[in-house]
Amino acid sequence: MNVRVVLAHPDPRSFNFAIAQTALRTLQQLGHQVVFHDLYAEGFNPLFGSEEIPSEAQVDPTLQRYCKDLVSADGVVVVHPNWWGQPPAILKGWVDRVIREEIAYRFVEGDGGEGVPVGLLKAKKAVVFNTSNTAPEREQRVFGDPLETTWKNCIFDLCGVKEFRRRMFTVVITSTDAQRRVWLQEVAEIIEQEFPRHTEQ
Amino acid sequence: MNVRVVLAHPDPRSFNFAIAQTALRTLQQLGHQVVFHDLYAEGFNPLFGSEEIPSEAQVDPTLQRYCKDLVSADGVVVVHPNWWGQPPAILKGWVDRVIREEIAYRFVEGDGGEGVPVGLLKAKKAVVFNTSNTAPEREQRVFGDPLETTWKNCIFDLCGVKEFRRRMFTVVITSTDAQRRVWLQEVAEIIEQEFPRHTEQ
Repeated sequence: MNVRVVLAHPDPRSFNFAIAQTALRTLQQLGHQVVFHDLYAEGFNPLFGSEEIPSEAQVDPTLQRYCKDLVSADGVVVVHPNWWGQPPAILKGWVDRVIREEIAYRFVEGDGGEGVPVGLLKAKKAVVFNTSNTAPEREQRVFGDPLETTWKNCIFDLCGVKEFRRRMFTVVITSTDAQRRVWLQEVAEIIEQEFPRHTEQ
Repeated sequence: MNVRVVLAHPDPRSFNFAIAQTALRTLQQLGHQVVFHDLYAEGFNPLFGSEEIPSEAQVDPTLQRYCKDLVSADGVVVVHPNWWGQPPAILKGWVDRVIREEIAYRFVEGDGGEGVPVGLLKAKKAVVFNTSNTAPEREQRVFGDPLETTWKNCIFDLCGVKEFRRRMFTVVITSTDAQRRVWLQEVAEIIEQEFPRHTEQ
């Protein structure tokens, strides 16, 4: 399988970075083709400009490459911290700019853009790993965990990616090294379950 | 009152721009002191870097100015399109960078960062205007309108801004000029209701 791993965290010493590396290594060990986008390290520009908004716009070559990587994926893995119930701005910009109309979704003919879009991505599965410093009970009760509906419904389901799994590790800031090792083991297990090795019949 | 208006849209011909201008003009006519931040026009950098994360970090003078503008506000008005159930990346970056620990909220002593923060903003009221191309029924049923909980609970309530009002105009893409004029009138009315003219007793 062709799997994309997209990471949004500014610090390569972060637990988010360790999650992404674990996902990457596990996917490679399972024989998958992986493209890794560390958005901060790549200097990804998150600003969606007005000239890019029309679906027929000619976008710059760098953005074209990000779009091609998404279109050619069989699966997508996203790793980011929960900042204000949303992804970091750099990843929000990846969503704004890369998940384009006519690339990832399409409005049906005669639809002026107000209707129900049709998903175009060939990827069947998305896995999202989040880190958080909010206790799970408070996340649900006070905030309603907006990242779940954002990634599952607003983004992936809309683009045709129907199988969705998400795991939010919390509380990270007070966690021990031993706890983090257990969590990274869980990352590897989730990747193995969701992207199993292809075996010849 | 000191009111801040924050706009996130790349196109000065957009309906979002018109909403922000209407809010701005109405606030000024009511006698309020207003600072307007058109984030795209100002070239706001939305990337929260790892060196900025510690609350005691010395941040750059530009960011300090944005923080001071927020701290000195009695009210905040935010204007942005609904992109994927979230604000545009540039505004997400304003949230990530400007709504800082020890500026807008604080963890109580002995709290390792996993607890319930205390809001520090003196602003009592926030008003959010959104534009959308999704029908209201579909927004609620399929997406659950994540912008409501994001702005109300995750951001403003956490920072101590308890009075919250939000209006999402939809469907914008197929709306007539006459409809937009009615909507702009509604913007002015909401501003007048939420930020009335101060009258001497």
